[in-house]
Order: sequence, then structure tokens, then C-alpha cells
Amino acid sequence: MTINVDLNCDMGESFGRYILGQDDEVLQYVTSANIACGYHAGDPPVIDKTVSMAGQHKVGIGAHPSYPDLQGFGRRYMEVDEEDLKSFLVYQIGALQTMARIHGYPLQHVKLHGALYLQAAVNGSLAHLAAEVIASIGKDIIFLAQAGTEMIRAGEEAGLKTAQEFFSDRNYDDEGKLLSRKHAQAMVEKREEAVERAIRVLTDNIVITPWGSKVNLGKVDTICIHGDTPTTVSFAYDLRNKLEKEGINVKPLAQFL
Amino acid sequence: MTINVDLNCDMGESFGRYILGQDDEVLQYVTSANIACGYHAGDPPVIDKTVSMAGQHKVGIGAHPSYPDLQGFGRRYMEVDEEDLKSFLVYQIGALQTMARIHGYPLQHVKLHGALYLQAAVNGSLAHLAAEVIASIGKDIIFLAQAGTEMIRAGEEAGLKTAQEFFSDRNYDDEGKLLSRKHAQAMVEKREEAVERAIRVLTDNIVITPWGSKVNLGKVDTICIHGDTPTTVSFAYDLRNKLEKEGINVKPLAQFL
Amino acid sequence: MTINVDLNCDMGESFGRYILGQDDEVLQYVTSANIACGYHAGDPPVIDKTVSMAGQHKVGIGAHPSYPDLQGFGRRYMEVDEEDLKSFLVYQIGALQTMARIHGYPLQHVKLHGALYLQAAVNGSLAHLAAEVIASIGKDIIFLAQAGTEMIRAGEEAGLKTAQEFFSDRNYDDEGKLLSRKHAQAMVEKREEAVERAIRVLTDNIVITPWGSKVNLGKVDTICIHGDTPTTVSFAYDLRNKLEKEGINVKPLAQFL
Amino acid sequence: MTINVDLNCDMGESFGRYILGQDDEVLQYVTSANIACGYHAGDPPVIDKTVSMAGQHKVGIGAHPSYPDLQGFGRRYMEVDEEDLKSFLVYQIGALQTMARIHGYPLQHVKLHGALYLQAAVNGSLAHLAAEVIASIGKDIIFLAQAGTEMIRAGEEAGLKTAQEFFSDRNYDDEGKLLSRKHAQAMVEKREEAVERAIRVLTDNIVITPWGSKVNLGKVDTICIHGDTPTTVSFAYDLRNKLEKEGINVKPLAQFL
Repeated sequence: MTINVDLNCDMGESFGRYILGQDDEVLQYVTSANIACGYHAGDPPVIDKTVSMAGQHKVGIGAHPSYPDLQGFGRRYMEVDEEDLKSFLVYQIGALQTMARIHGYPLQHVKLHGALYLQAAVNGSLAHLAAEVIASIGKDIIFLAQAGTEMIRAGEEAGLKTAQEFFSDRNYDDEGKLLSRKHAQAMVEKREEAVERAIRVLTDNIVITPWGSKVNLGKVDTICIHGDTPTTVSFAYDLRNKLEKEGINVKPLAQFL
Repeated sequence: MTINVDLNCDMGESFGRYILGQDDEVLQYVTSANIACGYHAGDPPVIDKTVSMAGQHKVGIGAHPSYPDLQGFGRRYMEVDEEDLKSFLVYQIGALQTMARIHGYPLQHVKLHGALYLQAAVNGSLAHLAAEVIASIGKDIIFLAQAGTEMIRAGEEAGLKTAQEFFSDRNYDDEGKLLSRKHAQAMVEKREEAVERAIRVLTDNIVITPWGSKVNLGKVDTICIHGDTPTTVSFAYDLRNKLEKEGINVKPLAQFL
Repeated sequence: MTINVDLNCDMGESFGRYILGQDDEVLQYVTSANIACGYHAGDPPVIDKTVSMAGQHKVGIGAHPSYPDLQGFGRRYMEVDEEDLKSFLVYQIGALQTMARIHGYPLQHVKLHGALYLQAAVNGSLAHLAAEVIASIGKDIIFLAQAGTEMIRAGEEAGLKTAQEFFSDRNYDDEGKLLSRKHAQAMVEKREEAVERAIRVLTDNIVITPWGSKVNLGKVDTICIHGDTPTTVSFAYDLRNKLEKEGINVKPLAQFL
Repeated sequence: MTINVDLNCDMGESFGRYILGQDDEVLQYVTSANIACGYHAGDPPVIDKTVSMAGQHKVGIGAHPSYPDLQGFGRRYMEVDEEDLKSFLVYQIGALQTMARIHGYPLQHVKLHGALYLQAAVNGSLAHLAAEVIASIGKDIIFLAQAGTEMIRAGEEAGLKTAQEFFSDRNYDDEGKLLSRKHAQAMVEKREEAVERAIRVLTDNIVITPWGSKVNLGKVDTICIHGDTPTTVSFAYDLRNKLEKEGINVKPLAQFL
């Protein structure tokens, strides 16, 4: 049986004089780029350059829209009216889609950012709003979202392809939900273990909880590479190599979904 | 001989709690809308609503990009690097184009705003930059610009259709250039006179200077209706009525260019 | 017995090209100005001019800080970290205090704006944070806040003078809390009634609920004049005249607290 | 003869998630901090923390105001109206002054940032505007500015103490002006040479041009340490040590001006 997986990473988060991430290096190992759209990070010159670099590396180009909150990096909940939020999303995704088109690339996917991602995971109304906006922009755009969440359900109901995302460096509970970051065992600290977990979940859909129970997460399509740590590049390199050694195909979502 | 003309007006300049213009009324009389893209005015909900209203009135939808300067309303010169400026333009026009597409309308035209418009009128390098950005987004997008300026030349060289704009309430000099606003006779104060000037320039391309000489401005395609005065609506109504009484067809640029 | 009352109104809410409110007219009738500090509204030139006008009218100058949200006019809840919020408040109040000092006026008071005001009314922790920030800037600055709320308690505990605010155009419940705006009878529609309510609460501290019960609100120091309605100026004029006819002294907080 | 000198460095340039500079380390060696005020860099939490750290290191606290241009880092010329610019300056300096006061420190100095600094060096009108704003905020605030420029003259005329700044890593021409950065020999590349130049100019006011002529720069009060290079910390350490070995006193401006 052929197993395919995508590696996604947040990118284009620099802004003016401020440099964030090592996009040019990470792009050698990941297969999908979630590109900031100017609301939590990124400015048009940064977005433009990131789209161009991602395309040259044959990495799938995605929009990474957020609440409008540069100072808070999109990590703060904001009580945004639903109609306003729709327009915020179209504006961001639309700008990025045109950037990509001018460089000759399609918009492969959308992944929500930060506080918006976390809320839409559990808030069906918000998840549907996002899915419908994406579908209105393009029926062939993939909705990249945390596996098993409201976002995945909403994406399917909106007729979108969805990409189920796995966090190899985070622990899950018995219901397949991420352990809160406040939990002492929220993080999987050892790199080898994170790699093992990725291989396991791709092979038989199973993740082991900190207390030893097995949870079936269902099919996983993409693994999140956190973009802003000192070890991002080496982890991406390692993970990709080990996945490929296991015979797993690492490629952009659009090539297998 | 059939004479066609478009009436264009700046719109979508409200922002959050701040209301500017009387877009819903003006849209009854004009035929092209220059919609702010969020840099000098407009926010995504405002843009979204304006695009929708303009489309319902069968008014041509245009992007009205600017320097990034909300507090200065895009009226201040900024020393923006050319590569950065390209990206600023793609971002703004791209966002608006997607907004329009979702509502089922094409992007008819682009008109630069404020300080950017004034500079590109006389700066060939800037004019070419703008024309090339527009052409890269769509070869069929019309470049709406002041008649006889560098913008028109650049648009033609970039293979774009251009719409030559006339200001019926402004005086011109012997070379067909606008008299500086500092000049005592810069403005045509009387409404009847402004209407007469519009009819004359459409009929035989002639405009009369304050000192009585005749200047041939060439073909005029569109007349600017200033959007932010107390008399905008009544002037637009008057001008349109009188043009139509003269047998001049008032319709969106895309229907006759 | 002498009864004193202050009339406060939000001001300085214009921004760049956007004009909001009729500050120059309202300043003839109110006695305290809550001046926007640039986070929900106002820009430095607007603040500067508003401070100057308020001072010339001998109106008490107050800072009106907010969450950082121009597009949402500070009316949206934002999940701001407490340490960050402290700095946001110092920054805004500090800028306004210096503006006032340069024009020769003291900072009389601080009133929180929008979502921040509504939350601090019921959230003791937030109320204390705000009160402590104000006290750190100046022990003699008055904390203007809704009567009977957590803000008043926090202000007292921080050693500040507090100004208890009454909304003459809003109905209260049996516990002296404002009826939610969603309630059918939230608003007092008739101007005469609003004026009567103001006189009554100043005279014997009593407000009548929509269902006829009497509630004692305690001492009231200031009445809120909503700044952004078409009838703001005429209501302020009426209210002030009628209060003075009843022998009530209308003057800035600093003159009687 | 006692020779005193201050070492100044730009600080507080981080913003939200974006980290810039190594303020905590640099503060060990410099004696004055030019703290960003939120217009080109810095946000209130960053400013607050930087003020606190600078004060703990007994480093003089300065405001570093700019044009309002976060994306351009204040390095782009903007055509700002003079009255508006005054208010922009008061707002920024005022916010920083209050931050400093709350932590128990005075505002020692003001240094203009970026494009504003470069213009005010040669534009007398702009220089006077800045000097008058500073004097209006406090007659005892030092105006830190490039030696021999319009800023120094304007500061003196406004009755301010001025601190004449020297750039040890830049070459000067025969008139004592900085060579343009476009000039091949604009920069002094070798660290030892930069240190030697600093010692020489402090000792006998002389700087040597790239073509060997001696120029008398007059008295120098402060040397600029560029804050954003990989070698900032080690250069500051070296320079300070070598100055002190020469018997030169390195201390904050307020202690010797």
C-alpha cells in the first residue's frame, strides 16, 4: 500500500525590518507552505518573495489568514462579527491567490492561523464560515485543518477536499484531542519519539497517549512543522529522511488528495 | 457619430465606525466605481459591500490602490522602494479582484489614488511600474488615468486599454495640464460651467483655459466625479442628465473601450 | 443642599480624513471630555486639537484609552495579556497627559472605552489593573466609571477619587445594573424622561425601573452624553439648562470631587 | 583635562512576536538608550520593559521618535504636514516620558529616528520644529543630534542642551559631513580604526578623511553604537574599554552636559 504525506510549515512571517523564520532553508524539506497574509504577520513584499520561493521549490502554496492583529501575532481571541470575519478572510486569501497566480502557481490550500485556528477547531459555526469562504474562492482549494475537528467536518460539508493535520510533537488524549499546552505532558520532547509517532500514525493511524492507551486518529494527510524554533530546519530534514526511508511518499497535498 | 463616456467616482472609503461618502446614492448616476483597497481607506467589510452594491447597479468595478497610509488618506508622498510598491499594488488589486469575482463581477479597471496618482502622472518610471503590475494581473483590465499623462503612455506600452480621464471642475493650461491647486483659477466653481466643459470636451476635445485659449485634450473616456463633497450626488445627477440630453451615451468603460 | 454634577462626553474620535462628532459644539455644554488616545479612534493631530479646544472651554480633560482596534472602534473584546494591557494603558494615557500639559492643562480623569469599559465594570481583576495604572500615573487623576461597578470599587481601593457615572437614557434593573441593550426596554427613548431621570437621581439617588420599582443608585457625579448621535448637541444643551434651572451646579469633576 | 563621552544606542525596537537587537547585553556597555516609541518600531510592552532595563543599568533614557511607518521602519521619507508632525512627536515623546516617570526615571534626551533624523540634519525648518517640540515638553531634555547639523543649531536656539553625535564607523568629508552611504568609502570597515577615530575626535576634535585631510568636527559628546549588527555587543564592549583605558570618562549625557 502506498502511503503519502505532506509536510506543512508556516512561512512568510517576516515584516518590514523584522525577520522571522528560515524560509529558504525549510522550503527544501517541506511540501506545503502556509503563507502569512499580512494580518498576523507578513507584508506584501515578504508574501511576494515567499510565494516565489515556495513555487520554485515546487512546494504547495497556501494562505494562512488570521484575525487582524500584528502586535499579537494573531494569537489573541478577538470578538469579530461573522460578516466582518468573512470579508477579512476573502481579503487575505484573495490577495495571496493573486500573488500566486502572477507567479504562475495555483493556491493549493488554506490553513487558518493562531487563535482563529484554535477556535474553529471546536466552534462549528466558525468552521463553517471559514469553509464556505474557501469554497466561494475556489472549489478545488484544500482546507488544511487539525484532524478530526469541526474544521474537517465543515470542509467536507462545503464540498472541499480536506487535509487532516497531525502534530508529531504534541500528545493527544483518549478522544484524539490535543492535550492542552498547560498539561505537563503536552509536548513530545524527544525528536526521535516525534518521528516515531509520525511514522506510526501514517502506518496504522494510531497514536499512543502519555498513559499508554492507543487512539485511532483516522487517516492523516499532513504533518505540521513548527516554523519558528532553532531546530526547525534540522527537524524537517530528519523527519523527511526517515519518512522516506520507511517508504512513505512525501509530497504536496495537491498531488495525492 | 456616437459619443460614449463613463462617469467614475471614488468609493468604499468608509472604515470601521467611520462613514465617508454617499456610495449608495452616487451609484445611481455614475458608471464606474474606484473602490478603496484598504491602504488609504476602506476595510474588507466596506470593500465587500461596495463591490456588491456597485455590481447590482451595473457599475464597472475598479481597484483604487494607494500608498499604505490610512492616517494621511494616501495623500502624502512616501519614498517607497519600487519592488515594495509593486507588491503593495498586487496585494491591493488582488484582494479587490477576488472580492469582485466572488460576487460574480470582473475587475473592470484600476485607478491609482492620491499622491500615487499625482506622481505617476509625471513620473514615467512609476507609471510603467503601475502599468506592468496591472498587465500582470489581467491584460483586459483598463488603466484609468489622467488624460495625456505618463500613465496613459505607460498603459499603452504595457498593452493595456487606457481610459483618459477629464476633470470638468478643474482648469487646464495651454499644454493640457491641470492648473496647480495653488493657482487662483484652479477650480471651475460654477456647476453649469463644469457641465458645459464636459460636453465640449466630449464633442470636440476642446477645453478653454482661464485666459481664453483653446486646448485640444484628445479623446476623453471618463469624467471624474469627486466623491466627498456635499453636492456630489446632485452634481452626478445633473451631469448625467445633461450629457444624455446631448445624446451622449453614459456607460461603463468596459462597454465601449 | 448643594448638588453638583458633571456632564461627560466622548471626543477626539476623528482620524485623518474621517470626521466624527461635533466636538466644538458639544464642548459648549459638557464639563468633561473623554478624549480618544489613538487606539480606538483619534490621531495625534486630532488629540492635540481636541485637548486645546477642551481647555479653552474650561472643560476637564480626560483620557479615554481602549484596546488597540481602530477598525473595530474598540468595541470588540480582545484577549490581551494583563501585562501588555497595563503598558497599552500607560502609553495612551501618558501621551494624552503630555499633550494636555503642553497646552497648560492637567489630566483630570480617565474613562475606559468600549469593550474595555464593559468588561472592567464586571471583572474585578481588570478593574484593579486599570485603577493601579491610573494611580501610578497620578494619584490625583479621577477614575470616571459606571456607578456601582467593580471599577468604582477598584478605584477606591487604589486610593483614587472616583466619579460615579449615570446613563440618563438607559434603563436599570432592580440591582442598579444597566438593562442589556438586547432588552426591549433598554433605552429611555423620550428626551424629557431622560432629563427627568437625571434630575431625580441627582436629587434623591433614585431611578425607576421599567416595571415601576425604585432603585437607589447612590451618589451620582457625572452623566454620560453620547457623542455620536444627531441630537447630541441639542440634548446636551437641554439637559444642562434644565439641571441648572433646578439649581444643580453643572461643572467639571475636579471642581467638586 | 577631563574628557567625557556618552555611548548611545537604539533600543526597544522589538514588536510583538518580532525580536530585534540584544538590548539586555548592549545595556551593559552603553550609557544612553534611544528607545523606539511605537511609530517605526517598539510596542508599549516592549517600551515599558526597555525603559525598566535601561533604568536599572543607570543608562540615560531617550525617546527615539519617527515618522509613522512600522513597515518601512521609519526609513522612508513621508511628506507629513508640519502641524501633524508636531503632534506625532509630542504623542511619541509624551508616551515614553510617562513610561519613564512611572519607573522613576527622567527623560534624558530625544534623538530623531531614520528618515526624520536625516532630513532634520539638513532642513532648518524641520530641525526647529523638532527642537521646539522638545523644549515644550521639557527645557531640560537634551537634543541628541549629528554634530554640526541644523538640529544642533535649532536645539541651541530653542534653549536646549545639545549632544553632538559622532559616527566612528563612518567617513566624513572636508566639510565635516558624513560621506553618503553610496560612496565607496562611506564606511570605516575595521573596528580598530573606528575605535582610533573615536579616541582622536574626543581628544582633539579631528577626524581624518579617506583622502587624508584633517577636519575639525568640534566637540563631540556622544558616539553612536549601531544596535542591529551581529557585532554590536562586542564593539560596544571594546570601544568602552579602550576609551576608558585612554582615561576618557564614559557616562550618560545628563552627567556632564
